[in-house]
Amino acid sequence: MTEGPEFTLQCPLPDSGHERIELAHGSGGLLTHRLIEEVFRPAFAQSPDDLTHDGAVVDVPGTQIAFTTDSYVVRPLVFPGGDIGSLAVNGTVNDLAMCGARPLWLSAGFVIEEGFLVEDLRRIVASMRDAAQAVGVRLVTGDTKVVERGHGDGLYINTSGIGAVVASQPISPRQVQPGDVVIVSGDLGRHGMAVMAARENLGFEPPIVSDCGSVSAPVLRLLDEGIDLHCLRDLTRGGLATALIEIAESAGVAMELEAAAIPVSDPVRGACEILGIDPLYVANEGCFAAIVPESEAARALSILREFDSAAIAVGSVRSGGAAGSVALKTMGGSYALDRIAGEQLPRIC
Amino acid sequence: MTEGPEFTLQCPLPDSGHERIELAHGSGGLLTHRLIEEVFRPAFAQSPDDLTHDGAVVDVPGTQIAFTTDSYVVRPLVFPGGDIGSLAVNGTVNDLAMCGARPLWLSAGFVIEEGFLVEDLRRIVASMRDAAQAVGVRLVTGDTKVVERGHGDGLYINTSGIGAVVASQPISPRQVQPGDVVIVSGDLGRHGMAVMAARENLGFEPPIVSDCGSVSAPVLRLLDEGIDLHCLRDLTRGGLATALIEIAESAGVAMELEAAAIPVSDPVRGACEILGIDPLYVANEGCFAAIVPESEAARALSILREFDSAAIAVGSVRSGGAAGSVALKTMGGSYALDRIAGEQLPRIC
Repeated sequence: MTEGPEFTLQCPLPDSGHERIELAHGSGGLLTHRLIEEVFRPAFAQSPDDLTHDGAVVDVPGTQIAFTTDSYVVRPLVFPGGDIGSLAVNGTVNDLAMCGARPLWLSAGFVIEEGFLVEDLRRIVASMRDAAQAVGVRLVTGDTKVVERGHGDGLYINTSGIGAVVASQPISPRQVQPGDVVIVSGDLGRHGMAVMAARENLGFEPPIVSDCGSVSAPVLRLLDEGIDLHCLRDLTRGGLATALIEIAESAGVAMELEAAAIPVSDPVRGACEILGIDPLYVANEGCFAAIVPESEAARALSILREFDSAAIAVGSVRSGGAAGSVALKTMGGSYALDRIAGEQLPRIC
Repeated sequence: MTEGPEFTLQCPLPDSGHERIELAHGSGGLLTHRLIEEVFRPAFAQSPDDLTHDGAVVDVPGTQIAFTTDSYVVRPLVFPGGDIGSLAVNGTVNDLAMCGARPLWLSAGFVIEEGFLVEDLRRIVASMRDAAQAVGVRLVTGDTKVVERGHGDGLYINTSGIGAVVASQPISPRQVQPGDVVIVSGDLGRHGMAVMAARENLGFEPPIVSDCGSVSAPVLRLLDEGIDLHCLRDLTRGGLATALIEIAESAGVAMELEAAAIPVSDPVRGACEILGIDPLYVANEGCFAAIVPESEAARALSILREFDSAAIAVGSVRSGGAAGSVALKTMGGSYALDRIAGEQLPRIC
């Protein structure tokens, strides 16, 4: 096989070998067996029975679980602050956190293009292992498919997750009420802009680093402290604006945001201005919005600031206003945020 | 956009519209919202809260669940007996059945190539809905990603599944003992050969129809009737031979199969002979092996024959022989089955 660079990771990494994925790695035969035994089980198996066949049997604590899935197609596969592996673990863990659940188990489905370097797969799997260990979640089942050269794009990963619901009250747009405060857990726009800069070789100075990470710990702390969380939403594709529009529509309420309060770092703001991108619509991967009663807002904020000093209240749910609307108050006036139809930044997750 | 045929389904289907998937369908914005509201929720939502955000919260019956995942990359997307949608539901349902679990919930992750016909997506989603309804499983959470034209292959689907474990004893290679009988639930090789024939336009007469379907009902009946199931394995990629080699290796036992007993239909046998393919290694998608104590074999067989008259005992676990070996007894003698290194039939699931 040729040693072309087409499937190598986009970041310079020392290359200790040149074994490449072949179609037979997806056949269920000897090479599939080797891939599982040499790459996946050493990273993920915690007991000899783990990952030995197509399903996992696990004991469930409690009576309610959260269940979520995401496929990851980010380009490039490696970006400042993370890679497709850490993203695939944290993104799904964060979806569980948004359900008020403690993450317990993950599945991983790999669709690999023929020719992908096994060494690169090992690095991504190691990154998944590290992210899973950091958050205390176990990868218990998986699947590998290989598609012919030219019929994939290096690597796609799907992760699904199961968590134990620890929230004692439902967390949902239905709980959102006029007077509630909208808090964001950190500064916005870093993931989308970091991926964009890496993909387009934009040499921002200082470089923008993705916020890719788990929000499980702050959410579990809010729940431990008995904060009445009306709604939680991670601010991924579509950013803060899209997340709040969806919640306002589902809840049938109006929201108002203070533009001046919305935390965006100077490097992200500068990059967005240069590229004509609105940071309110840029994806984050380690940042969420919490909607809480006004009486709980100060306590929630002080807890969140232990994890990220940029956490801040950015707006509130209004008692009047058109149901489903989100208004942005600026020095120049107030205008309604809309869903955007087009794609600002494709394939950021 | 052009109306090129490159992403259309391989079977002739009336085409009621020409809307195509755009990158923005994966952006999290307006088009993603429309896709969910117009295609996914009408097919899958059973209550207004279903599929409204990134995770589902469900009540768990019992204390043990099975969890499994599979990505589906089959080509062509439609084949005699099924399509990627029915395959994605049944394949994952069958993995849960192999854990002795009643399937409850599914997730679906779509990776769609820009340009794919929305109408084709609707048909595949309808096929998933029908397959899920037939088996009584609910699709409760999902995700959609869109990749640029040329960076995918029409459509990949990942499904993950959760089931309630109903087996009172562990079902695992560890339970397998000398004297146990190996039963297969139906005739072998239909799925792989049906997909191969469709992909290569091989006009076998009579046509070979995939066995794509759920094995949940027969497995639950075996459990209901109190059959002591030592091990279950669906005979997908790698076929019967690979499944039994894996079990024999995990269990540290030797098995012996009677070649004459192995059920292969005449059309499949003929097609395999023409193509030089061994049906023992061809994938099935509605067929499993059950390994049971000799004392239970007759009762297990009579139950399985209520579902498929081709169910039959094909071999046994030997008290001697090399651990991990599977021997095939033919009229001409006995030879050891090996894992195959290469890929007979890529992308059959």
